Amino acid sequence: MTFQPRDPEFAERVQASFAAQAFMGLIGAEIGHLVPGEVDLVCAKRDDLLQQHGYFHAGVTSSIADSAAGYAAFSLFEAGHGVLTTEYKINLVAPGSGERLIARGRVIKPGRTLTVCRSDVFAATDDDEVLIATGLFTMMQLAGLES
Amino acid sequence: MTFQPRDPEFAERVQASFAAQAFMGLIGAEIGHLVPGEVDLVCAKRDDLLQQHGYFHAGVTSSIADSAAGYAAFSLFEAGHGVLTTEYKINLVAPGSGERLIARGRVIKPGRTLTVCRSDVFAATDDDEVLIATGLFTMMQLAGLES
Amino acid sequence: MTFQPRDPEFAERVQASFAAQAFMGLIGAEIGHLVPGEVDLVCAKRDDLLQQHGYFHAGVTSSIADSAAGYAAFSLFEAGHGVLTTEYKINLVAPGSGERLIARGRVIKPGRTLTVCRSDVFAATDDDEVLIATGLFTMMQLAGLES
Amino acid sequence: MTFQPRDPEFAERVQASFAAQAFMGLIGAEIGHLVPGEVDLVCAKRDDLLQQHGYFHAGVTSSIADSAAGYAAFSLFEAGHGVLTTEYKINLVAPGSGERLIARGRVIKPGRTLTVCRSDVFAATDDDEVLIATGLFTMMQLAGLES
Repeated sequence: MTFQPRDPEFAERVQASFAAQAFMGLIGAEIGHLVPGEVDLVCAKRDDLLQQHGYFHAGVTSSIADSAAGYAAFSLFEAGHGVLTTEYKINLVAPGSGERLIARGRVIKPGRTLTVCRSDVFAATDDDEVLIATGLFTMMQLAGLES
Repeated sequence: MTFQPRDPEFAERVQASFAAQAFMGLIGAEIGHLVPGEVDLVCAKRDDLLQQHGYFHAGVTSSIADSAAGYAAFSLFEAGHGVLTTEYKINLVAPGSGERLIARGRVIKPGRTLTVCRSDVFAATDDDEVLIATGLFTMMQLAGLES
Repeated sequence: MTFQPRDPEFAERVQASFAAQAFMGLIGAEIGHLVPGEVDLVCAKRDDLLQQHGYFHAGVTSSIADSAAGYAAFSLFEAGHGVLTTEYKINLVAPGSGERLIARGRVIKPGRTLTVCRSDVFAATDDDEVLIATGLFTMMQLAGLES
Repeated sequence: MTFQPRDPEFAERVQASFAAQAFMGLIGAEIGHLVPGEVDLVCAKRDDLLQQHGYFHAGVTSSIADSAAGYAAFSLFEAGHGVLTTEYKINLVAPGSGERLIARGRVIKPGRTLTVCRSDVFAATDDDEVLIATGLFTMMQLAGLES
């Protein structure tokens, strides 16, 4: 699916909002891909992002899946409208190993109030990518917010 | 519901495993309550845990909801069995404001392979607690793991 | 939690809308309890509601869980506003045995646009009730609909 | 993705089990496509499958989404292993209009104990197909069952 952004400045708005998500800074996530309706976030392995078995914590996996989905939705909003996650569901299908995680957020169904997105998370090395999680997200568009 | 732990040392096992979840240390989460089938986690407000509107990031809310549910399940396992989140769903019903978040993980249905838990997250001040999220989690028991 | 209905005729509106859900008639579901924010639906065992192992089909369990949650939400709406399920998640925690199913839909968080509900389904005999499913539902209020 | 069935008789097993799901008979669902890891179910419009606004009831949409996902998983099991839905989540993204519904169940991640599937449901006319629902399903393989 390809989408037409309603705001030609969508990329700047996504980048500014993402930069303001302090928690994304804490875990070291960065935007790896950004077109209308599609955002990838990348998060490099770090000891303080892991759980008790040495894999990425499900909280990290979910956090970047959620933000990737949220910004995929937000990229299609008009200026002056913010985004809020109302709910999501995620299946963790393999351990979060690898050197970095890549969350690929994609809009499935845009809407005036609610936008439904998918987000798939991959554990990547230089040679390989393995699907470790897949989720469905419902994003809400809120008038009167900038981000 | 009250549950009988299969391992009398369940509290030590939960505490040791939680201490080994480096990501819980990164966000500053601590165990606030621990009995068989029930674990509360508390996470104090910090600038680097917020999203672009100044509320707790949904990733933080979900991370402590998930770990609280996981340890609620784990508290009922025999020694020598680890826990893994296979999937969850969370509804974010109010903005994550307040001075700290409290995630209350509770076992709904224990099982030999799968344990289903609920986790409710509250935004707390000294005077008040407001429900901000509620989720359902499926935890898997894995033989041959210590945590 | 207790709720104040915005429409004093809420019970009549729920009953009329439920009577118009032809599919609830097909499976033989009936309203067993109705107060503001709470609706129970009951569905008696019938051979054509079962799956291949002789238990209630998960589709029946989910259908009454969904309608119970939807009418719990709808009972709090103003007149002239309809209800739509936008999404839900359900955990099937035990086989659907018993002589009838009872789905208990409860509003967790009412809202102007979205209302979040829980629905628990029990398999009942004359002596006993066993939890077989628990779910979370997001209901949407739509202006300009009667039901 | 393409999958190798572990049982060469997988198609016969799926058809026999589906025929034994009396509830699929009640709603008139039929198998429209069946290869390893992929099952489509088709359900024609009938007055008694609708909700109060004249659209397919979400319970019908979910029931065929669930059965399509379950048989997609089951098609990859060894003989002598049955399938059970442990949980699912579904987003209803458009009203269920059209002359028939088509649920396309696809295995995302097969596993020894748990198999994760997606199921998309389309409302179809002779000219068109519109996505009305998308869901994620966790299926469990149970030894000692035939279906």
